[in-house]
Amino acid sequence: MTNGNRYDVTTWPVGDPVEDIGEVINSIIADITSRQVGADDRDGGKPGAVIYVPPGDYRLRTQVVIDISFLRIEGSGHGFTSSSIRFNVPEEEWPDLHELWPGGSRILVDMPLTEGSTEVEGAAFYVERAGSPRISSVEFSNFCIDGLHFRPDGSRKHPENTYVNGKTGIYVASANDSFRINGMGFVYLEHALTVCQADALSIHDNFIAESGSCIELRGWGQASKITDNLIGAGPDGYSIYAENHGGLLVTANNVFPRGASSVHLEGVSRSSVSSNRLHSFYPGMVVLAGDSSENLIGANHLLRDEEPWTPFLGVGNGADDLYGVIRVEGSFNSVIGNHISEVVDTHSIRPAGVTPVMVRLASGSGNYVASNHVVARGVHAASGGSAFEAQVGALLTTASAEALAVTAVVVDSESTGNTVLDTGTDDQITADRNANAIRPAPAPGA
Amino acid sequence: MTNGNRYDVTTWPVGDPVEDIGEVINSIIADITSRQVGADDRDGGKPGAVIYVPPGDYRLRTQVVIDISFLRIEGSGHGFTSSSIRFNVPEEEWPDLHELWPGGSRILVDMPLTEGSTEVEGAAFYVERAGSPRISSVEFSNFCIDGLHFRPDGSRKHPENTYVNGKTGIYVASANDSFRINGMGFVYLEHALTVCQADALSIHDNFIAESGSCIELRGWGQASKITDNLIGAGPDGYSIYAENHGGLLVTANNVFPRGASSVHLEGVSRSSVSSNRLHSFYPGMVVLAGDSSENLIGANHLLRDEEPWTPFLGVGNGADDLYGVIRVEGSFNSVIGNHISEVVDTHSIRPAGVTPVMVRLASGSGNYVASNHVVARGVHAASGGSAFEAQVGALLTTASAEALAVTAVVVDSESTGNTVLDTGTDDQITADRNANAIRPAPAPGA
Amino acid sequence: MTNGNRYDVTTWPVGDPVEDIGEVINSIIADITSRQVGADDRDGGKPGAVIYVPPGDYRLRTQVVIDISFLRIEGSGHGFTSSSIRFNVPEEEWPDLHELWPGGSRILVDMPLTEGSTEVEGAAFYVERAGSPRISSVEFSNFCIDGLHFRPDGSRKHPENTYVNGKTGIYVASANDSFRINGMGFVYLEHALTVCQADALSIHDNFIAESGSCIELRGWGQASKITDNLIGAGPDGYSIYAENHGGLLVTANNVFPRGASSVHLEGVSRSSVSSNRLHSFYPGMVVLAGDSSENLIGANHLLRDEEPWTPFLGVGNGADDLYGVIRVEGSFNSVIGNHISEVVDTHSIRPAGVTPVMVRLASGSGNYVASNHVVARGVHAASGGSAFEAQVGALLTTASAEALAVTAVVVDSESTGNTVLDTGTDDQITADRNANAIRPAPAPGA
Repeated sequence: MTNGNRYDVTTWPVGDPVEDIGEVINSIIADITSRQVGADDRDGGKPGAVIYVPPGDYRLRTQVVIDISFLRIEGSGHGFTSSSIRFNVPEEEWPDLHELWPGGSRILVDMPLTEGSTEVEGAAFYVERAGSPRISSVEFSNFCIDGLHFRPDGSRKHPENTYVNGKTGIYVASANDSFRINGMGFVYLEHALTVCQADALSIHDNFIAESGSCIELRGWGQASKITDNLIGAGPDGYSIYAENHGGLLVTANNVFPRGASSVHLEGVSRSSVSSNRLHSFYPGMVVLAGDSSENLIGANHLLRDEEPWTPFLGVGNGADDLYGVIRVEGSFNSVIGNHISEVVDTHSIRPAGVTPVMVRLASGSGNYVASNHVVARGVHAASGGSAFEAQVGALLTTASAEALAVTAVVVDSESTGNTVLDTGTDDQITADRNANAIRPAPAPGA
Repeated sequence: MTNGNRYDVTTWPVGDPVEDIGEVINSIIADITSRQVGADDRDGGKPGAVIYVPPGDYRLRTQVVIDISFLRIEGSGHGFTSSSIRFNVPEEEWPDLHELWPGGSRILVDMPLTEGSTEVEGAAFYVERAGSPRISSVEFSNFCIDGLHFRPDGSRKHPENTYVNGKTGIYVASANDSFRINGMGFVYLEHALTVCQADALSIHDNFIAESGSCIELRGWGQASKITDNLIGAGPDGYSIYAENHGGLLVTANNVFPRGASSVHLEGVSRSSVSSNRLHSFYPGMVVLAGDSSENLIGANHLLRDEEPWTPFLGVGNGADDLYGVIRVEGSFNSVIGNHISEVVDTHSIRPAGVTPVMVRLASGSGNYVASNHVVARGVHAASGGSAFEAQVGALLTTASAEALAVTAVVVDSESTGNTVLDTGTDDQITADRNANAIRPAPAPGA
Repeated sequence: MTNGNRYDVTTWPVGDPVEDIGEVINSIIADITSRQVGADDRDGGKPGAVIYVPPGDYRLRTQVVIDISFLRIEGSGHGFTSSSIRFNVPEEEWPDLHELWPGGSRILVDMPLTEGSTEVEGAAFYVERAGSPRISSVEFSNFCIDGLHFRPDGSRKHPENTYVNGKTGIYVASANDSFRINGMGFVYLEHALTVCQADALSIHDNFIAESGSCIELRGWGQASKITDNLIGAGPDGYSIYAENHGGLLVTANNVFPRGASSVHLEGVSRSSVSSNRLHSFYPGMVVLAGDSSENLIGANHLLRDEEPWTPFLGVGNGADDLYGVIRVEGSFNSVIGNHISEVVDTHSIRPAGVTPVMVRLASGSGNYVASNHVVARGVHAASGGSAFEAQVGALLTTASAEALAVTAVVVDSESTGNTVLDTGTDDQITADRNANAIRPAPAPGA
C-alpha cells in the first residue's frame, strides 16, 4: 500500500480532470477507501493518500465528497489574481490583458446551481463523516479554487461585484481534528472556507480574497489557529468569523478590505487576536459579540479609512460611526497595545456630524482597555485612478490630512466595572467614572 | 548528480520500507555519501538530497542516523489523530471506529527498546556529526512520527496514558545550523523533538502533541524560532523547553494542555515569547528559571483552568497555586500586555484556601510587569461527556462562573527593584513597595 | 495542458542545468508561453506551470527572465550554511571541513559581471512585465540562491567579508500581485530579494542571510507581509527595508546581525512591526524615516549589543549612540510594549562618554510611546573563540554585566505633541514637558 498512495488527477483512468475534476477525485477517494479494507490491524492503519493536482485548469462539475481521514489534496500554485479588478476593466480593453483568469493548480467551480441552492450544495469540496473518531488530518495545500463569476442580485451595478454565486470553496460539516489549509488561493466564491466543529484546525499562509466571506468557523470548536494569511472579504461578508470557539489564535494575518468586519467573534471565549494588520473601509472592524469573553485583542494595527475605488463608492456595512471600530459585547476581554487609525472624509461620517467611536464597550463587564493609541485624521477621498494606485495612494495619504475629533473609548451604561487606561485623553473618553476605572492618557501640553 | 538526488523510499532497492524504513533511509544516506566523494571542488558542493516518503505505514525498526548536511526527508501528510482519545474509548467500541491509528506519511517507531534504553537509543531519527562546519540545513517536512504505545509505569490507571515509552521522534546531538522542522506530526512519543546546540533552527507549523515532552532545546543555542505550531505535552513533560538559549523567538503557537508547563526557559536570555495562545490545567505555565534574563513575555493569552477529562482528573504538575501562572526567577525580564485567565474550581485550589498567584517574581531584580489583565473566575468543573465536547464545554463555560479572588502579582523578598504597572489592583499586589516600584491599576468604582 | 505543466530542469531537453540552469529555465518559460497561445477563452486561463529543481548544484550563467503569471519555481532544500564562517576559517583547515558550500537545490549565481554591472544586470531571477493586469502569483519555494563569493573593495581585510559582488537573487521590477517567496535560502548575494511595487506580497519562512541586503521593498506597495523569516544582512545593508508602503505587516521574524538596521521604513504608513525578535550590533535598529507615519512598533524584543566576532570588530553603521536604537522621524506612530536591551562595552560608546539613547523621536508629532521596558548593561566584550560559541557566549553573558546609564526616550525639539508613558524613569527621559505628555515609570524605591 506504499507507493500506491500517491495519485495524480491527470493520470487517473476514470474521468477527465479538465472536464470534471470532481468526478476524478471522487473516483480516487473510492479507490483509496476500497484499498483500506482489511487494514487497521496490529498497529497498521489507514494512512490515507495524497492527490496531486498539477498546474492547469480543471473544471469541477461534481462536488467532491471527502469522508476519509489523512487525505491530502495538493497543487503547485495558489494562482490568485484579482478577478475583481479585471471584471471592472472596460470590456474593450480585455483583448490587451495578459491574462483574464486566476491560474496555478486552478479548479473552476462550475456545478449546476440555482438561486435556491444551499451553501452545502454549492460546496466544491464537502467533508462529512459521522461516527468516531472525528475525521482527522485532511489537508488542502497550494491550489486555487475559483468561483469564476458572481451573479446579479441588484446590489451592485456590475453583476460581477455582488459577491453572490452560491458557491463555497471548502465546507467541512462534521466534527474534525487537526485539519490543515495551507498555501491555498480562494477567489470569487460566496463562501471561501467554512469549517464546523473544528479542533486543532490550522489555516495558515493562504490567500483568501474577493470572496463573499473568507473564513467562517461555525458551530463550536477549540484550539485552532488562523495565522499568516492574506484575507479580504466582500462588503457584506466576514473576513474572519468564529462562533462558540475557545482557545482560537488569530495572529500574523494581513486582513484587507472589504469585509463587513475584519474579525467577528460570536460567543467566543479565551481566544486571542494579536499582531495582525487589519484594514477596513467601515466601522465595526473587530467585533466581540454574543457575550464573547476573556479574549485578548493585542498588538494589532487597525486602519479604518475610506473606500477609494469607484465601483464600491458609497457601499457600507450598515454600521454607523458610533458603532465602534472595536466593539465589545462581552466581559473580561482585553484590548491592549493596539494602534487604531481612523482616516476619513468628514463628509462621509454617519450620522452626519457625530464624533466617531474607536473602542465601544457596549455591554458586559470587567473589560480592560490599556495602552492603545488612537489616531484620527480627516482627509479628502483619493481622486481615483487604477485600483492599485488609488489604494496605495489612499494608504499613503497623510500630507493633506488634518486632525479629526474622535471618541477613543465609549463605555455604555450597560457595561460596568471596566478598566480603561492610557487610551485617549480625558475628553476622548465617554464613560461613567463611578462605574468604571478610567485613567486617561495625559494630553500633550496639558 | 542532478536528478539522482531525489529518492523515494518505496522504490529504493535495499530493504523493505514497510518492514523497516530505517534500514532503507540509512541505505539511501550511504548512497548519497558515496556519491558525494570527489565533489566540493571549485564552487561545487555536496548538495545533499531529498528522501520522499509517500503516504503509507512504515515500520521503523532501525534508527536512522543522519550525518550529512542538506538532507531533506519529506512526506505528504502529517497524519495526526488523537491516539489518546482512542485508547480511552472502551475496547468494545473499537470495531466501530473509523480508524484506529494516525496516518499520512506515517512512521511507526518500533525499535527493540528496553526500560533501560536511553533517550538517544530510543530516537527514530538521530543526527550527529562532529567536526566543522556544523551540520546544516537538515529538513524534516510533512510526515508523521508515531510512537504507537505508551507502557505501564504505575503512574496512570490506563497504560496508554503514561507518556512513557523510551521513544524519541528526532534527536539532534551535535551543534547544528539552519535546521528546519516543518509541517510534521508527532504523536505518542516520550520525547517528540530534542535539539541540542541549535543555531538558527526553525520549528514551524508542526502538530506536536500527545507526547511526553514536545520541543526541547538543550545544551545551548541562539537565534532560533518556534513559530506557528500546535503543541501539547503530557502532564509530566514540557510543551516548549529551552535552556541556555539567546535570541530565541517563540511566537504564534497554540499550546494546549497538558504539559507540566507551556513554556519553560532555563538560563535563557534575550529571548521573546509573544503572541502565543497558551492553555494549561496547572500553575506554572510560563516559567523563567535558572536566572533567565532580559526576556519578553508579551501579548500572550494564558488560560489556566481545570482538567475536564475523566482519565486525567486529579493529575497535577506538582506546583501549587502559589507558584505563579507566570513565574520569574531572573532579572530584567518584561511581562507586558498579556491576558491571564484563571478559571478554577475553588475546591481544587492547593494548598486549600489560598489565593492563587498569577505572576510571581521569585528572585532576581529589575523585572518590568505592565499592562497585563488578570481575570479570575470560580467554576464547577465540567460534567464530562466526550473528550472534545468536554473540552469545548469547559472552554466556553462562563455562565456559571463567579468572581474568584487572586493575587495578580507577588514580588518575593528575594526579588527587588522591579516595576509593576497596571497589573492588578492595589489589593491584588503583594510586594515591598519600598523595594519595588508599584503602580496598581485603579479599581472600578474606587 | 494538464500534466504538461510540471517541468523538471534535469529532464528538459534544452541546455544543461548543471552548466547553466538559467538557459534551461528560460527555455521552459518560452515553452509555457508558446503553449498558452489560444487559451484564455471562456473561463479557461493561462494557468502557468511549476518548474522543479531537485537537490543538486546548478550553475546560473544566464539571467532568468520571468514575464508570465502563475509560475512556481520550487526545489527540495533551502540549503543554507554559513559561508561567512567558512571563509574565515584558515585555509589550511579546509581539507578537514565536511562541506565547503551551501547545498540543497542550489543555484550558483555565476553570471559574467563587471564592477560596473547594475543591480538589475546582476539579478539571477529578473521579473518584469508591463501592461495589465499586473503579473501575479509568481512563487519561489524551497531552493537556494548562492552568490558564491564577495569581491575585494577595500572595506574589509578579507575579500569574502565585503558583501559586495553585484549579484541579486531575485529582482522584481514591475508592479506585481500576490507573489510568494517561501522556504527559500539566500546566501552571499549583494542584494538577496528586491521587489518593486508589491501588492499582497508574502515573504514567509525563508532563511535570508549573509547577504549585503536581505529584503528590499522598493518604489511603493501595499498589503504585504514579511513573516516568520530568519534574516541577517551585512553591516552596510538592510535586513528589512520598505519604502512608500502602506499596510505592511512585519511579524514573527528573527532578525539577527549584522545589518546597518534591522527594520528600516522610509515613507511607510499604517504598517505594523510586531512580535519580532531583533538583534543588532549597532544603533538604529528600527528606523522610521521619511515621515513614516501611523505605524505600530509593538511587542518586539530588541537587543543591541557588541560585535563578538574578530573579523568584524570595529565595524559600525555610521550611527552613534545618540541616534536611537529606535528612531522615529514621522508622526502618529506607536511604540508599545517592546523590550529593549542595550548591552555594550562602555568603552565602545560613541561619541565617547555620552549616554546612549534607546528611543529617539527626532521629528514629526503625535507619536505614542508606552509600556516599553528599557534594560541597559555594561559588559566587557566576549573573549572570542569560534563564531558560534562567541555569539552564544555574548548572548548569554549577564554575570559580568553591570548597570549602564542610558536615556530611555529623547524627544527632540523638532518633534512635538508626543505622548511618552511608562518608558524609562523621570531621569531617563529628555523631552520638553510642555510640548509633550510625559509620564515616566515610577522608580523602584523612589
